Amino acid sequence: MEKENQQKLQSTSNVHLTKPIRCIVKLGGSAITCKNELETINEENLKTVSRQLRQTMMVSDSSCGKVLGMDWSKRPGFTETSCVVDDFCDQPALDFSHFMVVHGAGSFGHFQASKSGVHKGGLNRLLVKAGFVATRISVTSLNLEIVRALAREGVPSIGMSPFACGWLTCERNIASADVSMVAKAIDSGFVPVMHGDAVLDAAQACTILSGDVIIRHLAEQFKPEFVVFLTDVLGVYDRPPTEPNAVLLREIEVREDGSWSVVKPTLENMNKQVEITVAAHDTTGGMVTKIS
Amino acid sequence: MEKENQQKLQSTSNVHLTKPIRCIVKLGGSAITCKNELETINEENLKTVSRQLRQTMMVSDSSCGKVLGMDWSKRPGFTETSCVVDDFCDQPALDFSHFMVVHGAGSFGHFQASKSGVHKGGLNRLLVKAGFVATRISVTSLNLEIVRALAREGVPSIGMSPFACGWLTCERNIASADVSMVAKAIDSGFVPVMHGDAVLDAAQACTILSGDVIIRHLAEQFKPEFVVFLTDVLGVYDRPPTEPNAVLLREIEVREDGSWSVVKPTLENMNKQVEITVAAHDTTGGMVTKIS
Repeated sequence: MEKENQQKLQSTSNVHLTKPIRCIVKLGGSAITCKNELETINEENLKTVSRQLRQTMMVSDSSCGKVLGMDWSKRPGFTETSCVVDDFCDQPALDFSHFMVVHGAGSFGHFQASKSGVHKGGLNRLLVKAGFVATRISVTSLNLEIVRALAREGVPSIGMSPFACGWLTCERNIASADVSMVAKAIDSGFVPVMHGDAVLDAAQACTILSGDVIIRHLAEQFKPEFVVFLTDVLGVYDRPPTEPNAVLLREIEVREDGSWSVVKPTLENMNKQVEITVAAHDTTGGMVTKIS
Repeated sequence: MEKENQQKLQSTSNVHLTKPIRCIVKLGGSAITCKNELETINEENLKTVSRQLRQTMMVSDSSCGKVLGMDWSKRPGFTETSCVVDDFCDQPALDFSHFMVVHGAGSFGHFQASKSGVHKGGLNRLLVKAGFVATRISVTSLNLEIVRALAREGVPSIGMSPFACGWLTCERNIASADVSMVAKAIDSGFVPVMHGDAVLDAAQACTILSGDVIIRHLAEQFKPEFVVFLTDVLGVYDRPPTEPNAVLLREIEVREDGSWSVVKPTLENMNKQVEITVAAHDTTGGMVTKIS
């Protein structure tokens, strides 16, 4: 009972939204980067995903089908920006459903983090401190490119790093993760884009906070209608999808109390097998309302 | 008296540092970018400044003169990173004085902000919302490049955007600007790098928060020994330095109560003239302990 109260307190603190969040989208690192090529973005996938997100988010389209890009940076090879201010004339801000995006690191950050052991902590060692700096440079570079890709497709995206937001861990679990600024950004009509990050840890000085842990925390706090995972595979399988006989789980129902079960396909004795696999990837918990 | 108490309260809140900040460095936008070329960094200046900052920050040098770079990103034209993990072996983290950096926008962000009128607010207009997104993309791109330049010279730099830190304004004045995460980063041995940014405003929905206003707030909160302004001119003059007869002010004394006077050169009747000029640039107030 006490735990329940605590959970209720936590889940309502700091969250003041004028309307609920429709969807939190997780862009898997392997879907938006080339996993085996260091720090290389999968431009084609990222563009497709950005366009699809925009179409999904829009409630009404007053722009007559023309995409009004929001990345006005200079393009390579040009001296001027691509912005055409006149296109915007006096249009009101588009009506978007409340969305937010979290992305993984893919081929960004992992090299720096694993070489230096940032996840194991110990900032008193120069290698770990340098690795922390190098990891943040790599993952914030990726974040900027994703924000730009979304903005080019007309999504009002805003990069927000967990580190700068003041998120902290203790023994690698989230200890403090204020979402009030994320809520303010969403209420102002923006789409916050967060990412797996190197953060400070009260017990071991530093660690890596993964995109999946971020998603779980955000889902607990905001209780969105949907949490969508975009990966390089088709969905959630009952075992690693490269294994023979892996079965795609078409629908997973998650109840208010956080328990869940597979709705489709309806196979007997599969539940336990799935539970282990999903838990190993740490993407479950009381977090998903639906996996679409 | 009440005002004094208020100031004292404000200046001690949230700031818990193990040792005081030695210096806040302002990198003027015109010093690190090519002011007349859109989104172009002055690479040479930035490299020189980064190296000099490192030398100034270091208390002791245990690295035998070898610079251990902390930007391990892939370089253009290479498929591997430049990181040599062995160089770090088991060195303890270097002893740095507590520093932090704030930079202006120079040729980044201004175009996007002025075209859309972000500083005047009004997020219900699509142009302003797009300009807000575009401005943040531009200034965070610059921030990333400055963090990388510092890291390449061995400075453990960490980018922190005022927006993500939850800084808010009301009628364009700072209304909420928690520095606790900045303090934690400094205490962990990092050099936070903040920047002028587009932020949410309680009265007009959004505005631009300038690097100079950020510096003033940080100086009030942290009371550093020094605040250093690196600009494209030699220092603070008694009038715009392009005017004939402009006199470089070699030393400005700022007293505890925030009043200040010019120590060198000692010219009669110059004080009033200076006061007007400096106030017009909004970089004074109770903020500087010394201008070096």
